[in-house]
Amino acid sequence: MSAKPLKILVIGGSAAGPKAAAKARRLDEHASITIIQKEADLSMASCGYPYYVGGVFDDRNQLICTPAGIVRDPNFFEKAKGIEALVQTEAIAIDRAARTVTCKHLPSGETRTLAYDKLVIATGATPLRPPVPGIELEGIHHLQSLGDADALRKIRDERQVRHAVIVGGGLIGFEVCEALRLADIRTTVVEKTDRILPFLDPDLAKLVENYVRTHGADIITGNGVAAFLGEGGQLTAVKLENGTELPCELAVVAIGVRPNIALAQAAGLKIGGQGGIKVDEFMQTSDPDIYAAGDCVECTSLITGDKVRAPYGDLANLQGRVIGQNLINPGSATFPGITQTGICKIFDYGVGFTGLSASEARQRGMTDIETATVSGLDIPGYMKGQLLISKMIADRKSGRVLGFQCIGPGDVSKRVATVAMAIRGKLTIEDLGNADLPYAPPYSLALDHVIVSAHVLENKVLGRLKGLSVSEVKERVDAGADCFIIDSRTPQEFEEERLGIGEHLIPQGALRGRLAELPRDKDAEIILYCKISLRGYECAAILEGHGWRNVKVMEGGVVAWPYPREK
Amino acid sequence: MSAKPLKILVIGGSAAGPKAAAKARRLDEHASITIIQKEADLSMASCGYPYYVGGVFDDRNQLICTPAGIVRDPNFFEKAKGIEALVQTEAIAIDRAARTVTCKHLPSGETRTLAYDKLVIATGATPLRPPVPGIELEGIHHLQSLGDADALRKIRDERQVRHAVIVGGGLIGFEVCEALRLADIRTTVVEKTDRILPFLDPDLAKLVENYVRTHGADIITGNGVAAFLGEGGQLTAVKLENGTELPCELAVVAIGVRPNIALAQAAGLKIGGQGGIKVDEFMQTSDPDIYAAGDCVECTSLITGDKVRAPYGDLANLQGRVIGQNLINPGSATFPGITQTGICKIFDYGVGFTGLSASEARQRGMTDIETATVSGLDIPGYMKGQLLISKMIADRKSGRVLGFQCIGPGDVSKRVATVAMAIRGKLTIEDLGNADLPYAPPYSLALDHVIVSAHVLENKVLGRLKGLSVSEVKERVDAGADCFIIDSRTPQEFEEERLGIGEHLIPQGALRGRLAELPRDKDAEIILYCKISLRGYECAAILEGHGWRNVKVMEGGVVAWPYPREK
Repeated sequence: MSAKPLKILVIGGSAAGPKAAAKARRLDEHASITIIQKEADLSMASCGYPYYVGGVFDDRNQLICTPAGIVRDPNFFEKAKGIEALVQTEAIAIDRAARTVTCKHLPSGETRTLAYDKLVIATGATPLRPPVPGIELEGIHHLQSLGDADALRKIRDERQVRHAVIVGGGLIGFEVCEALRLADIRTTVVEKTDRILPFLDPDLAKLVENYVRTHGADIITGNGVAAFLGEGGQLTAVKLENGTELPCELAVVAIGVRPNIALAQAAGLKIGGQGGIKVDEFMQTSDPDIYAAGDCVECTSLITGDKVRAPYGDLANLQGRVIGQNLINPGSATFPGITQTGICKIFDYGVGFTGLSASEARQRGMTDIETATVSGLDIPGYMKGQLLISKMIADRKSGRVLGFQCIGPGDVSKRVATVAMAIRGKLTIEDLGNADLPYAPPYSLALDHVIVSAHVLENKVLGRLKGLSVSEVKERVDAGADCFIIDSRTPQEFEEERLGIGEHLIPQGALRGRLAELPRDKDAEIILYCKISLRGYECAAILEGHGWRNVKVMEGGVVAWPYPREK
Repeated sequence: MSAKPLKILVIGGSAAGPKAAAKARRLDEHASITIIQKEADLSMASCGYPYYVGGVFDDRNQLICTPAGIVRDPNFFEKAKGIEALVQTEAIAIDRAARTVTCKHLPSGETRTLAYDKLVIATGATPLRPPVPGIELEGIHHLQSLGDADALRKIRDERQVRHAVIVGGGLIGFEVCEALRLADIRTTVVEKTDRILPFLDPDLAKLVENYVRTHGADIITGNGVAAFLGEGGQLTAVKLENGTELPCELAVVAIGVRPNIALAQAAGLKIGGQGGIKVDEFMQTSDPDIYAAGDCVECTSLITGDKVRAPYGDLANLQGRVIGQNLINPGSATFPGITQTGICKIFDYGVGFTGLSASEARQRGMTDIETATVSGLDIPGYMKGQLLISKMIADRKSGRVLGFQCIGPGDVSKRVATVAMAIRGKLTIEDLGNADLPYAPPYSLALDHVIVSAHVLENKVLGRLKGLSVSEVKERVDAGADCFIIDSRTPQEFEEERLGIGEHLIPQGALRGRLAELPRDKDAEIILYCKISLRGYECAAILEGHGWRNVKVMEGGVVAWPYPREK
């Protein structure tokens, strides 16, 4: 026991801050630990707000209580954790030379200056607001704070609002969209860029868009907000850049966040190129006595080595734990970086990703990549398997898996978690394609979706399978290109559902007997597909075996086709 | 196109065989490919049998059809795959010098001899039968073949059988147990060794045992079958080694399988020390023109390098795919080995594992290992999270994750898949503890169960947490050991449920104020726990901070206690 206890100050009481404080306490019972928290609440389960708003659960206490039902208030922090928590208290200045933080108690306006040996900055992020007229109107919300959640929940419960517009087609936007639809509010999601969910490649994003529409929400892309219109200070409509007016009583803005770096910046700490506080693998800032974590920092991509911003609650907790260890035993723990993994639930779809999308990989100059879009069930049909549609990305030369996106009603989260771990282990598609995963019919196909995805991608890398994306096929069809399209399904399947893009129905089992129907020119472009394009792939191999040289498979098959179909 | 097509023979038409054949076909449209299959059916979904027997689905065709509804019969193999399938045909001899296989058409008794350039042996395994009197009685079944499934399904549908005994407490035994209980048949599982589910360590196995009992099945361990008793050729009871007689009209024997190696052995192929056909990483036998895969071969453990038997359908498919590639392009694909991963559903529990159990690791001479038993929810309580109880094993020196077992009503399969991939990537507990997994409240806690498991295990390796298993605590209590036991939960939790092992209730928040109640002797053994032992761990840190030197946490907490409790 040291004579003089270590003085630790933590600015921020949401995720990273309390985690760092609690971890430090477990390692040093005698350190003096104080959390400075601007809001009234501590350790809020902020990722749960959309589900509280949507009425998935009603007891608001569950957002701020321990599992044993104890509110995580300053009294709890004092008794259970031995941590002083100053709430409704804003840190207003850091004096690095004096090693002090000045803070202000917001209700009383009183300021005080606290000394530290070690400081943690976990100031989080602030929702971005579009710089357009009317942004101050009543009826425009975010879903960032517990107060925001309370306000939206009240709107849900009062059942007065009938039309809402969500500004921003990202994760939070769609979580809020689901919540509002559950409250039977007509909802339109407006996205300024040309597609929703930017971590998905366009073909998958389009499928999610189609799906969301089937749940009664509208989506407008490529059209930003020009103004919020109102009467008597109250929102009445959202006006888009193209002039469209969407009448609504509620707008929820979810166009991203910016890191809260003002305090760090004023103290002279280094800020990174992505606008977050710069930290090393110990989560140490440019001042060795100051650590930072959570939404206010930049992370390192384990795939590219680039700095990225990743404002996710799980990362804040992981980083906070690393800091807690380093506060007590400097240099004892590292946070090497992230694979950029995320997921959201949109109605009955999971939408998840890990690593890079193909678009992002190309933007970062990785041109020698291969992708495979694969559709399939999560578990056998006889166990009521549900569809998964995914896209896996790998480096052609090394075979290393770079990214994976997965959507659908099937168990997306398991597949994303599995591939996230494969990416962390720097595994290749060959490694992943030989993985020994837990197989039993209630949980998986004999070859799980992620394994099949790796196999298809391997087939593409090795040149066994030449794929076309649904959008590439659509372009050819729209351009009237001279290609011969074959649907390899059964007549019954064709009767129930078909694309109507000039395809010829030649069921897999009949193909070898009907080769005479195919173009005589062995260089003619032939495109094959089936429901999920496994049969399409097998048929392509048959045609190649019979000398056709330009045979391609429409990846993902009929279920991955996001455009209108004949039937 | 070669002038002379490659002649491929495949012995076995269940999983590995058809997969090898189909993959070879995709790579060579002109090879001659023939499957020799002893049974009448091909490519049966044998892992689905328990669910068909249990009435989870009724359409038997789903076990032998493609997803598009086409029966995988010889006609399908010919038309869709261009593969000849000889069913009800037994391979009876391999002549390696002549490169031929002699086979017999079972209905007609006719034999013929087929030539091969490359041969695949995928002869599977046969269920073991206990060498006891009465084994030939009517009413004793396995669940290995489709015929077995038909017979058991008929028993279910006829609803005449009221008592059944399952011999063998492994995966299949419990899958059958669930199926029979769904048919309202009183079921007793008899296991010769002292515990069920041998891939689990005893404390977890005991929890599963307790759970199964709540579903009306009885379990008898440490007591093998001495005889099957009958009247008029019909089973009437199972007699155990201790003399107990269990009246029953049905017995299902599931005590494991032995690889079908007779054909390979007679041909002079090398057999490994575990009794399976010896293959290298190309799945090549000791004869370079002969490959083997599936239940009849031995695999390599990626963890220990040892040879092991692993008769699982997913591995058979993976190995078959590797063979298919090597048949056409020798040496082009490898199957490096397995992590020994498996799962089964038992009522609403998932029971899964990957890598080594602690028992197995110690048996293999790995003594410097550390384990952590961790209880927790899969997703937040407000999203109706369900319990997971798991045990993670790591090498103390390298930190490398060696194994993971997980049970409970929560989403076990996702956690096992995630850790299986971590083990394949040779990740350490530090890697796993920093993993960036897909987090959103419908899918995970902010720190997923596998991450928390890694953290607890890291805390143990670093000496921050000294753990005791529930069985170690029970031994101390039973022996009247002089230890001071503290339950760190709230009075309300204590009132609802408590162990009654002489514990003192000192809620976490009260501990710092009640240190005077603890033993004065700072070397006294103090054992703490709470519901899941997170608070127990925090309280242990408090006591260590106040000078107690022999403080231990009962891992897994109250929910992991498999013994009778006071309340």
